[in-house]
Amino acid sequence: MLLALDAMGGDRAPQEPCRGAVRACESLPDLEVALVGDGKRLEPLLAEVSSNVRSRLHVVHTEEYITMEDSPSVSMRRKRNSSLRLALDMVRGKEAAGCVSAGNTGAIVAGGVLVLGRIAGIDRPGLGVPILSLSRTSLLIDVGATVRCKPVNLVQFALMGSIYMRCLAGVPEPSVALLSNGEEDIKGDDVISEAREILKASSLNFVGYVEGKDVPVGKTDVVVCDGYTGNVLLKFGEGLGEGVFGLMKEEIRRSFLPKIGLAFMWPMLRQLHTRFDYEKQGGTPLLGVEGTVIKAHGRSKARAIDNALRVARQFVLQRGVETIREEVAKGGM
Amino acid sequence: MLLALDAMGGDRAPQEPCRGAVRACESLPDLEVALVGDGKRLEPLLAEVSSNVRSRLHVVHTEEYITMEDSPSVSMRRKRNSSLRLALDMVRGKEAAGCVSAGNTGAIVAGGVLVLGRIAGIDRPGLGVPILSLSRTSLLIDVGATVRCKPVNLVQFALMGSIYMRCLAGVPEPSVALLSNGEEDIKGDDVISEAREILKASSLNFVGYVEGKDVPVGKTDVVVCDGYTGNVLLKFGEGLGEGVFGLMKEEIRRSFLPKIGLAFMWPMLRQLHTRFDYEKQGGTPLLGVEGTVIKAHGRSKARAIDNALRVARQFVLQRGVETIREEVAKGGM
Repeated sequence: MLLALDAMGGDRAPQEPCRGAVRACESLPDLEVALVGDGKRLEPLLAEVSSNVRSRLHVVHTEEYITMEDSPSVSMRRKRNSSLRLALDMVRGKEAAGCVSAGNTGAIVAGGVLVLGRIAGIDRPGLGVPILSLSRTSLLIDVGATVRCKPVNLVQFALMGSIYMRCLAGVPEPSVALLSNGEEDIKGDDVISEAREILKASSLNFVGYVEGKDVPVGKTDVVVCDGYTGNVLLKFGEGLGEGVFGLMKEEIRRSFLPKIGLAFMWPMLRQLHTRFDYEKQGGTPLLGVEGTVIKAHGRSKARAIDNALRVARQFVLQRGVETIREEVAKGGM
Repeated sequence: MLLALDAMGGDRAPQEPCRGAVRACESLPDLEVALVGDGKRLEPLLAEVSSNVRSRLHVVHTEEYITMEDSPSVSMRRKRNSSLRLALDMVRGKEAAGCVSAGNTGAIVAGGVLVLGRIAGIDRPGLGVPILSLSRTSLLIDVGATVRCKPVNLVQFALMGSIYMRCLAGVPEPSVALLSNGEEDIKGDDVISEAREILKASSLNFVGYVEGKDVPVGKTDVVVCDGYTGNVLLKFGEGLGEGVFGLMKEEIRRSFLPKIGLAFMWPMLRQLHTRFDYEKQGGTPLLGVEGTVIKAHGRSKARAIDNALRVARQFVLQRGVETIREEVAKGGM
């Protein structure tokens, strides 16, 4: 399977995307990666890669790329030779089975829609992130494909999230909730309450509102919100993790007792940290476009890119796009 | 100083409010608390309190109270003898220096505006919560007085937050940021970007956008968002804390090594937990109304009510309301 990787996307490009692609190819013998980006910068990074892996890494040269400051839709239209655009073009032209980028989220979403098109019945795609908790893995959707949205967009996120969890994550009758500022029906704004009424009348297993506190404990299989809220929430969780670990380090530096404790607890703490390290773990599928597009965290290092490539490969193998298209077409609501 | 306490507000009323009032009076000899609520239920809870404290607890009997399901504005107008309404009336009538409630947030806000009135120059009050981090204490405002708001409301939250941090928390030239889904100016929705332009032109120390991850690490002194976002964020943090501690307990139960480590680390972990246990720590002042109104967490136990009474007392001693009124009147923008 050939996947296209936007080698210029993300804060640590092109080094980390290259290293991530090498890692993925090392462990997945069926994988080939097209590294789309500036050949002059990419080739030296691949100089010492073993021939077995190197033969499966294809540099697709372009000097243009999209920065984090670029306006998403404008750059996607104007920068026709940008690394992201070319990676998406490869998916459209069936040269690549899917693509991965750690770059500008807005551009990835705009590009996904512009180049690949939307799945019939979906007005706006959504980014869904799996949240691991004690009891289950929940899908939080949308975490940044939109900023604000209409009730119909929230409803479509609910539908796609439900399809994803049922068909791709194997959860029978996934429970779906809207994220709100309280459990009672009087909570939420007009958009959220209108979506609630549509979802109540649908055939989805809609359970009403959940609150912020219910997200990390995994109260439902799917949690729906607009992209502003999902983004802020996810990054808050990230910052909180960093904050807690920073405080821990500080405490451990200051006193002796926790140092002893730490030696015994380190493996467990590491595991916890990984568990709450949402985005860095891998990639987020852009649900609702006609192709496999995986958004990796902007700060992705090699491990995260490696994981994002695995997520893309899995999504392709599971026929993710086709499944969503078929299920949306069935109505499902 | 006499403070009015809505003894029927919150999930654990009237037991925990009563116990909290007792605790506060035990340690603060100048404090008197008017316990507003059903005398038949309150009196037995006070039966064994020492006479020194009991003499400073005054039961103000009423059988009516506002539930979590009640519509805020309707219940505030109709339930004129509700415990919350009477507590606010006592503040208005200067019988009480301030009031505390762990009840229905919407009703507390609506009641604050209806009974006490808004400070001139403030269209809608905001709830500000201190967020403790490694480097500083930031004020997150609003965490639930509003759901959505207009740019002018966000600007007024920024102003009140800045006044609060400068005059009441002793931070010179507090830095103020808007919470957004990215740092670049192209991020945010129309409301947030309009507020950004107004704040840029103001005399506040406005530093632009911060992201979710910047909140727990304390990047700025004041973080401004609408009440939906602040509520979801705060509760997400709460749930995450519970989730992490739940996972830790599970790991510790399952294996032996972490048990040993835990013995050494427990004091530190406790401290961390308390640090991120935002709302339960105490109360949140409703900024922008003509009186001291402190909202305590709905799940408040005695300790939290005790702390909320302390926050109210401190706010009164610091002339919180007068300070905000005077500073807003000066323009300050």
